[in-house]
Amino acid sequence: MPNPTAAMLVIGDEILSGRTQDTNTNHLAKKLTEIGVALREVRVVGDEAEEIIAAVNALRVKYDYVVTSGGIGPTHDDITADAIAAAFGVGIDVREDARTILATNYKNPDVELNEMRLRMARIPDGATLIDNPVSKAPGFKIGNVHVMAGVPSVFHAMVDSVLPTLVGGQPLLSVSVRFDMPEGEIAAPLATMAKANPDLSFGSYPFVKDGRFGTNIVVRGFDQAALDRAALDLEVLRDRLTSG
Amino acid sequence: MPNPTAAMLVIGDEILSGRTQDTNTNHLAKKLTEIGVALREVRVVGDEAEEIIAAVNALRVKYDYVVTSGGIGPTHDDITADAIAAAFGVGIDVREDARTILATNYKNPDVELNEMRLRMARIPDGATLIDNPVSKAPGFKIGNVHVMAGVPSVFHAMVDSVLPTLVGGQPLLSVSVRFDMPEGEIAAPLATMAKANPDLSFGSYPFVKDGRFGTNIVVRGFDQAALDRAALDLEVLRDRLTSG
Repeated sequence: MPNPTAAMLVIGDEILSGRTQDTNTNHLAKKLTEIGVALREVRVVGDEAEEIIAAVNALRVKYDYVVTSGGIGPTHDDITADAIAAAFGVGIDVREDARTILATNYKNPDVELNEMRLRMARIPDGATLIDNPVSKAPGFKIGNVHVMAGVPSVFHAMVDSVLPTLVGGQPLLSVSVRFDMPEGEIAAPLATMAKANPDLSFGSYPFVKDGRFGTNIVVRGFDQAALDRAALDLEVLRDRLTSG
Repeated sequence: MPNPTAAMLVIGDEILSGRTQDTNTNHLAKKLTEIGVALREVRVVGDEAEEIIAAVNALRVKYDYVVTSGGIGPTHDDITADAIAAAFGVGIDVREDARTILATNYKNPDVELNEMRLRMARIPDGATLIDNPVSKAPGFKIGNVHVMAGVPSVFHAMVDSVLPTLVGGQPLLSVSVRFDMPEGEIAAPLATMAKANPDLSFGSYPFVKDGRFGTNIVVRGFDQAALDRAALDLEVLRDRLTSG
């Protein structure tokens, strides 16, 4: 059975303007890879309801899981929860369980849990809450869509809350062999190896260091013994190319 | 007239597996913002022809410019150029102008410009080349789609080659005011300010530092004087909230 698939939707003008470097995607990607869920697509859209709705609806029918990041805070530009409700065609309002959790974050909730903060207790009908041990305001899950915060420390905590609830697959394993030569010198034998090992995927990742080109060859697959054999073959190839 | 729009398509399994943190998007976002082109959407897909073709065709009809990153090297997993040709329904083959440029990268091109490296001279029919001062192998432009390398130093050089050819708009300016308090305490007056200034966009970006929540308010717009007034209003608000 193939591994479950996932998509990530990053929401926020600050990513598109270049003000903020998204790192949540990379964090999620690593965590999903570990449990054998294949992240297949990422999208980034701005704080625009129509764009969020269209992206969520495109992704949730195509992949087993969708994770979103951003736009669930208390300010006027936090519109993710309402957009998700619209995407699913359900209502949304302040929910008592979310309000109760949120209140535990404040010494004096009657004063501090103001109207804007109460926006963080707006949960689409039928959604279940996602625990946020960092700052209480919960994320939520509706259908196969997991709606999480954009602040990295909160996003990470929510990922930790959600991961045990996902059905994973076979963890994708990898080995990496570094060649201190440009990939054009490895490409032909690498293509031959890739063809001879259809159960493994061979990725070639060139880099520039101190003005010289090098290449990391990363082999991915589900069988550690097959990966170890591929790594050995690559090392033999490297020795031959280096001495040749 | 509204500013021209753009989308970025990042291509590569290494981004989706979490092995590599994409930074090309952030670089492009900053450069486009400077020249008044609005980056509106980003997608990341793996090294799969069908996914690349679908994404390119969705983005190129929706935005003024599309930039892609990744998958134009010499190895078997570099399939971007062929996928782009398929997306446009045109042929692709080794092209003499690209081969000539590529040859300048090698001391002994008759030997070094091997069959796999020649893949980097495969250019879709009708495309124009994008200069690559770092490692010669050119990118290309077809229609409104700019196809560039994934290695950051090469991507940056290609962005520098392409930027002067884009029709920009009014540069989007911004001011930022930092509040050492959670955004829930600023949200209500901020919503009022946003409503009173429809020509400006007010973004609220919470952060956690040394275990304490803070908030950067970023105001964006095209009129520096209006931004300066907004920054002053925010500073007055901050003083009031801090002393209150």
